[in-house]
Amino acid sequence: MPTVIPAEQLTVWAPRAERVTLQAGEHRLAMQRDEAGWWFPAAPLPAELASGPIDYGFILDDDERALPDPRSRRQPHGVHELSQTFDLTGYPWSDTLWTGKQLAGGVIYELHVGTFTPEGTLTAAIERLDHLAAVGIDFVELMPVNAFNGTHNWGYDGVLWYAVHEGYGGPLAYQQFVDACHQRGLGVIQDVVYNHLGPSGNYLPRFGPYLIEGQQNTWGDSVNLDGEDSDEVRRYIIENAMMWLRDFHVDGLRLDAVHALQDNRATHILEELAVEVEALSAFVARPLTLIAESDLNNPRLITPREGGGYGLTAQWSDDFHHALYVSLTGDTSGYYADFDSLAALGKVYENGFFHDGTRSSFRGRTHGDRIDTLRTPTWRLVVCSDNHDQIGNRAAGDRLASRLDRQQLGLAAMLTVLSPFTPMIFMGEEWGASTPWQFFTSHPEPELAEAVSKGRLEEFEQMDWDLSVVPDPQDPQTFMNSKLNWSEPSKGAHAELLALYTRLIELRRTYPDVVDPRFDRAVARSDDDRGWLLVERGQIALAANFSDRATALDLSVPGEVLLAVGTGEVTAERVRLGPHSGLVLLLSDDATAR
Amino acid sequence: MPTVIPAEQLTVWAPRAERVTLQAGEHRLAMQRDEAGWWFPAAPLPAELASGPIDYGFILDDDERALPDPRSRRQPHGVHELSQTFDLTGYPWSDTLWTGKQLAGGVIYELHVGTFTPEGTLTAAIERLDHLAAVGIDFVELMPVNAFNGTHNWGYDGVLWYAVHEGYGGPLAYQQFVDACHQRGLGVIQDVVYNHLGPSGNYLPRFGPYLIEGQQNTWGDSVNLDGEDSDEVRRYIIENAMMWLRDFHVDGLRLDAVHALQDNRATHILEELAVEVEALSAFVARPLTLIAESDLNNPRLITPREGGGYGLTAQWSDDFHHALYVSLTGDTSGYYADFDSLAALGKVYENGFFHDGTRSSFRGRTHGDRIDTLRTPTWRLVVCSDNHDQIGNRAAGDRLASRLDRQQLGLAAMLTVLSPFTPMIFMGEEWGASTPWQFFTSHPEPELAEAVSKGRLEEFEQMDWDLSVVPDPQDPQTFMNSKLNWSEPSKGAHAELLALYTRLIELRRTYPDVVDPRFDRAVARSDDDRGWLLVERGQIALAANFSDRATALDLSVPGEVLLAVGTGEVTAERVRLGPHSGLVLLLSDDATAR
Repeated sequence: MPTVIPAEQLTVWAPRAERVTLQAGEHRLAMQRDEAGWWFPAAPLPAELASGPIDYGFILDDDERALPDPRSRRQPHGVHELSQTFDLTGYPWSDTLWTGKQLAGGVIYELHVGTFTPEGTLTAAIERLDHLAAVGIDFVELMPVNAFNGTHNWGYDGVLWYAVHEGYGGPLAYQQFVDACHQRGLGVIQDVVYNHLGPSGNYLPRFGPYLIEGQQNTWGDSVNLDGEDSDEVRRYIIENAMMWLRDFHVDGLRLDAVHALQDNRATHILEELAVEVEALSAFVARPLTLIAESDLNNPRLITPREGGGYGLTAQWSDDFHHALYVSLTGDTSGYYADFDSLAALGKVYENGFFHDGTRSSFRGRTHGDRIDTLRTPTWRLVVCSDNHDQIGNRAAGDRLASRLDRQQLGLAAMLTVLSPFTPMIFMGEEWGASTPWQFFTSHPEPELAEAVSKGRLEEFEQMDWDLSVVPDPQDPQTFMNSKLNWSEPSKGAHAELLALYTRLIELRRTYPDVVDPRFDRAVARSDDDRGWLLVERGQIALAANFSDRATALDLSVPGEVLLAVGTGEVTAERVRLGPHSGLVLLLSDDATAR
Repeated sequence: MPTVIPAEQLTVWAPRAERVTLQAGEHRLAMQRDEAGWWFPAAPLPAELASGPIDYGFILDDDERALPDPRSRRQPHGVHELSQTFDLTGYPWSDTLWTGKQLAGGVIYELHVGTFTPEGTLTAAIERLDHLAAVGIDFVELMPVNAFNGTHNWGYDGVLWYAVHEGYGGPLAYQQFVDACHQRGLGVIQDVVYNHLGPSGNYLPRFGPYLIEGQQNTWGDSVNLDGEDSDEVRRYIIENAMMWLRDFHVDGLRLDAVHALQDNRATHILEELAVEVEALSAFVARPLTLIAESDLNNPRLITPREGGGYGLTAQWSDDFHHALYVSLTGDTSGYYADFDSLAALGKVYENGFFHDGTRSSFRGRTHGDRIDTLRTPTWRLVVCSDNHDQIGNRAAGDRLASRLDRQQLGLAAMLTVLSPFTPMIFMGEEWGASTPWQFFTSHPEPELAEAVSKGRLEEFEQMDWDLSVVPDPQDPQTFMNSKLNWSEPSKGAHAELLALYTRLIELRRTYPDVVDPRFDRAVARSDDDRGWLLVERGQIALAANFSDRATALDLSVPGEVLLAVGTGEVTAERVRLGPHSGLVLLLSDDATAR
């Protein structure tokens, strides 16, 4: 398909290099620089290079070897090797009638390409999209697909942000995947990591001051967002975002760990990104979504710019997960400690953040700020009962499904999918997959491999875990074990849970009060002694009994059962719930009318 | 299709009636009321009424005759006669993959069903949708379709807001029309009138205090939005909006003359509507648009609620029209007086409103407030060079096309379609239709007919017009004359203008700077003596010569021609323009970078 080399693919920013030489096929060609530090071919390309694709790279100063292009679109030979030209504009899109998809009202499905199917490719993933559409999913969220070293990992070790991992099928397969999603009415959200680079194959520091040496976050050197020469580093991020949204027709981005973006400029990189994405949204005439993974509990991130905020569309709410997790499991270790009451979950339904200026014992300080619940729509918070991090960061990578009974899983589903927030389901959760989702890596470098394997053990050793359950991330079997088993969803209890998820999503489309985005429509009550929580929102009520004893509670107004998890019944205003049971109720009147 | 009578269609709000009787087919059935003043059948309906459709109405107190239902979905026998049940939920929609359409980036096409085609029906309009799609239109905006007395008029004399005018095809044809639009990727915006009721067939005051007697606006009694019993009146409006957006799958509403909505409540009806529509948007999971026709120049209307505004999506900007109109025609009569400089048009490009706290000589006071141009996106203003009001309110209903030369029409198109705002095209404008669009009515009542005919003449007599050009609104020929002539668009100069419009819209999809929503990207300069205006926005510049002499001007940076209206050329930074000519230029660099 690509017949002409896009000219911008043979340029590179290297402001501190004395000399840059273009390696293009067998040719070595002189480059010259402009004032901003961008290098471009000094003379027209040899005729035989005029049609692509070609392998190419940049030789800095007196280096012997060409480095891959920081904006490489394709790395067919691995992240340490030459890049290959790829014309993103050449794809024959068949989504011309796609008018985009807004986040409000949507349900997200988080998916890791490598373990979603046995093949672990984007092409294989297309075969499963009909399953997602049948469940009622609106958005497929792909964990990072950018190029990394090795054959498989979670994706957060990317080093070439503009390239699609070749093992997933590269950029062409990615375009086909997005196209296939749009054919089925599914939007695509891409998880992107702008806060650090992976440990192997990161040549960016050779080209320019992309990183701030010595200033590290949890995962590596911080990205240079406000230091000298950071204008171009910010463009590197923003133009990457544009590439996904514009050239790959992606509908939204999930911004990894934005709390690790160190930026002291007057306009934060997140706001700058939001402004640019808003402009692009008008150009492509479809909604574009930006979702932050943030542990800051800072409402400013999701406040529109007209309201003085950064203007992101949404952010993850860990508080919802933590409150639900504690309610289900009773686990109050570590950062779960503050969530040691069902009232915490109730507060989350009413206010969004649990930590909204309250003391966080885990952090040893107050944390967060209050959301303007009179004006902020609830769907700006993305919530889940499990996700890649929650599962994979457990020692054995075990899902909630392996530790809860069926009814508890149903409760988790009910309380998440019927929350007023934007629910996110982690792949396989919808049928209670028995497969774990473990931490896996494939570092080819022996030292790095060993360090990661040892580090993983040490991490859990410190927490006094039984280390025999901790799989070796470098063992290929750890990766294989994490792949979904597609024979499960049609079977027994798996099929029942799948039917429940499908029915719950259907309820979102049937009763407007379920997705009503007004925080102040929720009134929550709970009883820690008896283990129940009641959330009334308009004419919809969710009643949950987390305890292993039957219990009873009173509604504000009479109700009837729309859906039951486990055993329960209602007589006028009196609700009786069996152990680990829940009811979705249609109230006779708006219980929460002011 | 409708087999069961929706129960809510046989209820009515009549808080001050002593007795209400349901007339259903040949039956007269007692009704009983609840505390809120709603009446419902006192006993189950006779079996033969259980399947619809049936004619029905409500007999108030000692009346002899049944009145039509204020929420009638269908008036097959006219607005004075019985209503007919119609099940809106029965339509077999084929737009299941329609994910909605956002306003940002869109182009609107304003259309009057009765005169869009010779047949004047929704079904006939469907046949012309491919034309709209080919031009590049995004939204079809239908002038009001609610039920009115007579066979034809503009639509602003509606009296039954929930019914689709039977002459257009009624509710079924409306559903088919929206469905057909969605099949072609076109969104639908419905013009709705909530500020007054038409002069014939308005039985609302019989049912309840819908209007405030004695408090009139330009068109009739004001609607009771903040007086006693106004809660239900507000629901009447809001549920009507819900009906279009939810049951008819409409994508947005154009709210007629919101400055005539008298509402002193803490929460203005517009904000209440915006809140309800936002909630519905999450439920139907697609963007819903609210556009106000407002002459208040009040930015609060289009400020998101999180920023303290009402949260409407957009509003019309008359200032754009007026500034452009004066630039093109030199007419500075009446409210055009303040726009007597090309700098006025330049200011509109830079700031949105011309009257943003400045003195309005027409109003004899300062007018408007400044838009927050650092945060408000430009597309929140809907602009046009002509519309139903501008054309139809001229004495002879003559379009710009009848008074400007071809090149001037091209200039108008260029400056509107390539503005950063949301352009709206009035049907036929895209080919410079030779047909007028006149003020037409069809009042069957002789006194009303005469009053309207006389009133029209008096209106123009006061302005010293030659009354021989003023057509009689009641003359059926006035209506017939206003119908588009579909043999035109393929011919000569019409076809050339059509090609220009198509190309201009294409430029919006090609160059991001054209639709960039940042106000502060625009830098405008003008010269009244020589009659030119230059607007530079990023790498795009619009250069226009309104005068009938050739002129020249300088760009900030060199540019090249993307499109020419009339004659023009550019040499480096020097632009030469023939009389009534314009150029769209691609600049070598961002001229407006800060």
